[in-house]
Amino acid sequence: MKTILLTGFEPFAGETLNASWEVARRLHGTLAEDGSRVIAMQLPCVFERALRVLEERLDSLRPQTAVALGQAGGSPCVRLERVAINLDDACMVDNAGQQPVDVPVVHGGPTGYFSGLPIKAMASALRKVHIPVSVSHSAGTYVCNHVFYGLMHEAGRRESLKRAGFIHLPYLPEQVMRYLKAPAMSLETQLSAMRLALRVVQTIHKDEIFSEGTLD
Amino acid sequence: MKTILLTGFEPFAGETLNASWEVARRLHGTLAEDGSRVIAMQLPCVFERALRVLEERLDSLRPQTAVALGQAGGSPCVRLERVAINLDDACMVDNAGQQPVDVPVVHGGPTGYFSGLPIKAMASALRKVHIPVSVSHSAGTYVCNHVFYGLMHEAGRRESLKRAGFIHLPYLPEQVMRYLKAPAMSLETQLSAMRLALRVVQTIHKDEIFSEGTLD
Amino acid sequence: MKTILLTGFEPFAGETLNASWEVARRLHGTLAEDGSRVIAMQLPCVFERALRVLEERLDSLRPQTAVALGQAGGSPCVRLERVAINLDDACMVDNAGQQPVDVPVVHGGPTGYFSGLPIKAMASALRKVHIPVSVSHSAGTYVCNHVFYGLMHEAGRRESLKRAGFIHLPYLPEQVMRYLKAPAMSLETQLSAMRLALRVVQTIHKDEIFSEGTLD
Amino acid sequence: MKTILLTGFEPFAGETLNASWEVARRLHGTLAEDGSRVIAMQLPCVFERALRVLEERLDSLRPQTAVALGQAGGSPCVRLERVAINLDDACMVDNAGQQPVDVPVVHGGPTGYFSGLPIKAMASALRKVHIPVSVSHSAGTYVCNHVFYGLMHEAGRRESLKRAGFIHLPYLPEQVMRYLKAPAMSLETQLSAMRLALRVVQTIHKDEIFSEGTLD
Repeated sequence: MKTILLTGFEPFAGETLNASWEVARRLHGTLAEDGSRVIAMQLPCVFERALRVLEERLDSLRPQTAVALGQAGGSPCVRLERVAINLDDACMVDNAGQQPVDVPVVHGGPTGYFSGLPIKAMASALRKVHIPVSVSHSAGTYVCNHVFYGLMHEAGRRESLKRAGFIHLPYLPEQVMRYLKAPAMSLETQLSAMRLALRVVQTIHKDEIFSEGTLD
Repeated sequence: MKTILLTGFEPFAGETLNASWEVARRLHGTLAEDGSRVIAMQLPCVFERALRVLEERLDSLRPQTAVALGQAGGSPCVRLERVAINLDDACMVDNAGQQPVDVPVVHGGPTGYFSGLPIKAMASALRKVHIPVSVSHSAGTYVCNHVFYGLMHEAGRRESLKRAGFIHLPYLPEQVMRYLKAPAMSLETQLSAMRLALRVVQTIHKDEIFSEGTLD
Repeated sequence: MKTILLTGFEPFAGETLNASWEVARRLHGTLAEDGSRVIAMQLPCVFERALRVLEERLDSLRPQTAVALGQAGGSPCVRLERVAINLDDACMVDNAGQQPVDVPVVHGGPTGYFSGLPIKAMASALRKVHIPVSVSHSAGTYVCNHVFYGLMHEAGRRESLKRAGFIHLPYLPEQVMRYLKAPAMSLETQLSAMRLALRVVQTIHKDEIFSEGTLD
Repeated sequence: MKTILLTGFEPFAGETLNASWEVARRLHGTLAEDGSRVIAMQLPCVFERALRVLEERLDSLRPQTAVALGQAGGSPCVRLERVAINLDDACMVDNAGQQPVDVPVVHGGPTGYFSGLPIKAMASALRKVHIPVSVSHSAGTYVCNHVFYGLMHEAGRRESLKRAGFIHLPYLPEQVMRYLKAPAMSLETQLSAMRLALRVVQTIHKDEIFSEGTLD
């Protein structure tokens, strides 16, 4: 059976939940348009360990699609990340107390990888149903970019993994109660966004992805 | 029968819809907790004319409660306005091409009026159900503040009008498609927010309002 | 001799300096266009006490002009405050550990006071020399608005005090080193802004102020 | 004689000046710490043509250092760009009416290039003198990134070009008069920032750059 691996992060920075995991876990077990089953997985918010457990799961599950989700606190919209860079430069410690500064994700790896998802088609589909969405050109230099880069690096080495990429989600409304000025997006809207995004991923052929946006 | 007048504005600044009217019209005819019926009314986005039609409706309808809604583009949350000021200072023309600068809403009127709604209780109620909300101390100096000030001025002269105030609503998602960076709130969440806000307005006694927030 | 009282606040919220006092103290002793001498005074960032010491100084100094300065962290421009409201509603404790919520600045006072400064003329003058400036319609509900409201209340009771108002200043560059994303304005520019603002205040006759902006 | 090529852009998007060129042209002919002479050059805000004229100048001038400047309207600080990506995706037309979407800067080029400037040392130096600065991980996908990517691509092919990179500058104060809410930085501060930045570039040895920040 075909599978889609959908990862979300554990809470970090003293928070009690993480929008990316709240969304991922609720999609666990659902079926995509083409019959693929979604398998949700929580990643630790820890440099290196996050990638190690992700790689183990890629080995055991052998998904055709892998989409990693992260939380972009303060963003008012779903952010489709376009490029991962080979750089860890943490502005705060991760959940294991590590704070790598100016080191590569993968020694000897290329400077960057473009997303393997049909980002522009996903953006169009979300806009049509009025879900705020943007195409982003930086996933930061913290654990999110670390996982995104590592995932794309692995995708290049695994023939079975046809599509991979990273999407940042806004805060959930309950997370911004204290800050009030920060934008948020309801869980229902985030779930609709991800269901639709996965549908676009599964129904666009790889060739179309390349003609549509990727660069080679 | 007791009635709640709920006003929203027509679209302005070249837009094709206005969140405040989209919300108001969908609550038209619904019943509040205490059996009061909501009557929705669209106001023109025009200085003076907006107040004139509002006053006519207050005369004919004699509501116990009047809540004016406006659209605060760019705000990520429902904004409960706390104070209206006696100043028109428009940064752009209204829908009739007028642009009053540095003139009072009511000649000889006081500098300001505090809202007559139980703002802090409303904010607490919305927060409990995770709807982003803030207490705002400026409704601007455009048509929104003009209507807010005029409404409070009228409320002081009509014994039947027990509660009056103004609430700003965020953009709806379909309004931010072009800007993408602007926050928005779904129609469903905005409707939930207003149903709950009206419930708090109708179930808190006037004395509690005064002990809770108003100042005298 | 004619005097201008120029107040600034002590640092608060754990900071080691306050832009408003850094500016005020450097203008102490300078002469305005019309020969008036600027007297700088530091106010404690404490509800009630700030107003008490300000009133004592107004009694002893009997200035013709009093301009209170405050710091608006995060603002990219000089903010000329247009209206003070009769409300203390602190979101954090002041430097004496007090946190008044929903109480009036002056019991029985009017809801608001407009600034007594020629705000629009000041804004024009600053724009002409390319200093970022805005007209603001809320000075908040913390110690800044408390002092602004109290100052305007006193101005109405003192014949000798012809002009009074409040101006918010941005962070100084050294204050935003940690946050980096917050805008700042150099001390030199802030000093130029205030010298020019005081010049406008001293050279525009009261009648012109009223025809230009104030409302009654 | 050793030279530093410093480029700035012509105005675009209907503006009458561009902060990057205002800064670059004023540094033309000055000497850096190590005796190198700064040569300023204006680039057209046009895809491809900007790179073509830049390459011609690199051929004729053979500078040891090349720093391209761009304008980041809305940024409150100097932004030291860390990575260029192989993607043109214009959200508006350039000055020649072109709007490339989803095409590479260089066909067959790598996904990204890290800056060849000692970014972290530059950031430290600017912070020490209280100039707001940040390290940025996206130079966008418009002409700025196009020039940055093209410059780094050329740097890899020219042995004489030892250091190259891109820096984004904020608006000048006169540019934000209409918007007022946008942050700006005075010309004097921008010039100080660039003089200091070039000094750091010229006095740090290449090896130190690599141990300090670059990744390989």
